[in-house]
Amino acid sequence: MTQGNDAVAFAEAYLDRTIAELKEFAKIPGISANPAPCPELARSAAHCAAWMTRIGLENVEVLELPGVHPYVYGEWLHAEGAPTLLLYAHHDVQPPGRPAFWKSPAFEPEERDGRLYGRGVVDDKAGAAIHFAAIEAFLKTGGLPVNVKVVIDGEEEIGSENLGTFLDRYRERLAADVIVLTDTANLSAGLPSITYALRGITVVHLEVKSIDHPLHSGMWGGPVPDPVMAICKMLATLTDADGNVTIDGVGGEIAAMDPVVRDRLAKLPYDEAVFRAEAGILDGVELCRGNGGGPYELMWHRPSLSISALEAAPIKGASNQIVDSARARIGVRTVPDMDGRKVAEALCAHLAKRAPWGVQVSTTIDGAGNWWITDPRGPAFEAAERALAKGFGREPVYIGCGGSIPFVEPFARVLGGVPALLIGLEDPLCNAHSENESLLLTDFHKAIVSAIHLYEELATLPRKG
Amino acid sequence: MTQGNDAVAFAEAYLDRTIAELKEFAKIPGISANPAPCPELARSAAHCAAWMTRIGLENVEVLELPGVHPYVYGEWLHAEGAPTLLLYAHHDVQPPGRPAFWKSPAFEPEERDGRLYGRGVVDDKAGAAIHFAAIEAFLKTGGLPVNVKVVIDGEEEIGSENLGTFLDRYRERLAADVIVLTDTANLSAGLPSITYALRGITVVHLEVKSIDHPLHSGMWGGPVPDPVMAICKMLATLTDADGNVTIDGVGGEIAAMDPVVRDRLAKLPYDEAVFRAEAGILDGVELCRGNGGGPYELMWHRPSLSISALEAAPIKGASNQIVDSARARIGVRTVPDMDGRKVAEALCAHLAKRAPWGVQVSTTIDGAGNWWITDPRGPAFEAAERALAKGFGREPVYIGCGGSIPFVEPFARVLGGVPALLIGLEDPLCNAHSENESLLLTDFHKAIVSAIHLYEELATLPRKG
Repeated sequence: MTQGNDAVAFAEAYLDRTIAELKEFAKIPGISANPAPCPELARSAAHCAAWMTRIGLENVEVLELPGVHPYVYGEWLHAEGAPTLLLYAHHDVQPPGRPAFWKSPAFEPEERDGRLYGRGVVDDKAGAAIHFAAIEAFLKTGGLPVNVKVVIDGEEEIGSENLGTFLDRYRERLAADVIVLTDTANLSAGLPSITYALRGITVVHLEVKSIDHPLHSGMWGGPVPDPVMAICKMLATLTDADGNVTIDGVGGEIAAMDPVVRDRLAKLPYDEAVFRAEAGILDGVELCRGNGGGPYELMWHRPSLSISALEAAPIKGASNQIVDSARARIGVRTVPDMDGRKVAEALCAHLAKRAPWGVQVSTTIDGAGNWWITDPRGPAFEAAERALAKGFGREPVYIGCGGSIPFVEPFARVLGGVPALLIGLEDPLCNAHSENESLLLTDFHKAIVSAIHLYEELATLPRKG
Repeated sequence: MTQGNDAVAFAEAYLDRTIAELKEFAKIPGISANPAPCPELARSAAHCAAWMTRIGLENVEVLELPGVHPYVYGEWLHAEGAPTLLLYAHHDVQPPGRPAFWKSPAFEPEERDGRLYGRGVVDDKAGAAIHFAAIEAFLKTGGLPVNVKVVIDGEEEIGSENLGTFLDRYRERLAADVIVLTDTANLSAGLPSITYALRGITVVHLEVKSIDHPLHSGMWGGPVPDPVMAICKMLATLTDADGNVTIDGVGGEIAAMDPVVRDRLAKLPYDEAVFRAEAGILDGVELCRGNGGGPYELMWHRPSLSISALEAAPIKGASNQIVDSARARIGVRTVPDMDGRKVAEALCAHLAKRAPWGVQVSTTIDGAGNWWITDPRGPAFEAAERALAKGFGREPVYIGCGGSIPFVEPFARVLGGVPALLIGLEDPLCNAHSENESLLLTDFHKAIVSAIHLYEELATLPRKG
């Protein structure tokens, strides 16, 4: 594996430049929660395309559809007879949250104590940068041992809603023997992890109204139904005292856990004190016990429900009134064999049925992304295990991920069930989706080296068909 | 009663000027929810003092205490041997709410269809203006038949919290034979009403936290307690399915209703369709039944609870996260013989006990104003009945008021139990405390005439001591 060693040497020699390029990339606030077309997403896509062109990818193109944040595509297909890898990451980012909570500004990346801080640095601009660095290292030292097709999504953080249209249009161009998706997490810093399961996500918006304008709470309080109390009573019925989801008609379809999987979970390192510290759980707060299966089972193999937004009148300037309406945004994480759309419909029906005093209830289903699960066996997974062990100097573990990557399930399906390798750089301290998002730079280095080894290991993969 | 007739003629001749003066007064945004010292409250007090001086009141003074919004005082004490009336209103106003909901700007008073729209026009600048117009009418036509002391409160909308200090300092100066408070409502437009009961108000702020920063709901959802769900579960326990307040340890002290009062309530006009229309209750929404006693009993003689503010993350820009904290503002309206402070403490204890998963709960008691009730019998009430009947051309009714006027109870007590006559100009369509607050101008006219008759009727009241 001489060429791989050359590529590793190249990548390590140019590591600082790669980090500098990542910082430039992370200065662009490509927030996909903004409506398309969005100038920052266009700028983010153009920046990404320029980087891909610079490293030697060919046929680089910004893939545009009306009303869709742009995807970026590039390829290198000169490894004749070798397998083709479809490499996936995304360039869009979450909104930055509360500016006051950031220790350095969200879109001014800053290194502190071995971590790079900024919105999108780890989710998922580092995921793209790993592959760009690995591809460049090969192309500058003699060429890639595999063919690569690179897709950088522009709407992952809003559920890759237009993926269906995208797939229909580019299905043939994206044919590959294995998919490598770099948008997941390691169980802990320095511990390489391959993700075999993702939960789905179903989002419902709820609004409750009882009166057509706010009323003086003294003059009217008593007979007039309080819509804020109504929404609380309704939402309170969605989980039980142990935190289990209790939506009418939902639950029976949840697949029983495979004993092999249960056994694998039991062997994973788990330290409650570390878990609490990583999650930032406050003193005295107890973990939800759920069905008793432990945190990994609850996060990866059981549904969960969070009220991700709730608003009635603001506290500031509040007067003694009966508020006229209240709104909530409810997210349900789904697992095999739940049907996200049916969960959303059941949730809406459950809420409508629980409305006290006949308050007016309106619900809107805001997308439902599928869960995904794979049985991580066969030559592609074995190749990944060897590559990660080399790059990180530790044997990788198989983990689930409670989050959703809507791209995975339909893509693996459309590409005819080819193996999907989910690896990534998030770690429990990275604050993805929260303020002070960060990337551990030593793991970024190891991940680039692992990617180089992975391309070499996958070069011997039997080709599809 | 020739002089009274002269005064009425004067007041009616100058009615347009009085309305113009009220409009000028209502342009000042004296929002007492702002911290003291507040320039707008100082301006409002100065404006009020100038008006009082112009009409002939003497010893007009802005009463200032550090950190307190200014009260305004004025007097006319030349009716030798006649009783002394203490006239009360307030010049501070509620925050204007949502600007977009106002059909004309809150602080640019505008007449439309016989109503004057603007923040504070009815609550309670009209209350002050009535007395200013009545006093001027007498003083310009030969003098008042009674002595008057006028107090215009500057912090009524925030609970007159410094009333104790104020009373201690001015107790002797405020001695009177009867108190007339002009800050209440008529049961319906054109139906003069004397208020015999006010509920108290107890406000508690609640904050619930489980984690020290927001978390990705996929990565962490399951074992990590959701503080938004926690606050919903906690708040949901504060009322039952009929809307009754269900705070642990609260309720047993509620006084049984006097059969005389119950009988009086039963005779009051009540039309559910009108009530629903006036409250703006949406189609299909049912009234809370409470203990079954009907709306007047629920609003005037039973406690009620409203969640006047609730906030976690805002809907706009919401991501799939577990929020770190949620906050609510809870108001409880209290009745005899509840102790507002004890209710607040019980509410805090109830919430702390209901916190699921050991989430961190902090509560702050934000003031507790007392309820007040009187037995409306004796010469002062009879005088008021005659005066209102003359001014409105209809027999007055006795009503309760679900709102609180913290001034009333301690003042009546400190002044040695003298009768307190509560009259006012709010009506079910006036939107006090909400957007599009308004004053019905025909009732404003009738109320000025009634005030003139009231001073004359009270001139024969036996003097105290």
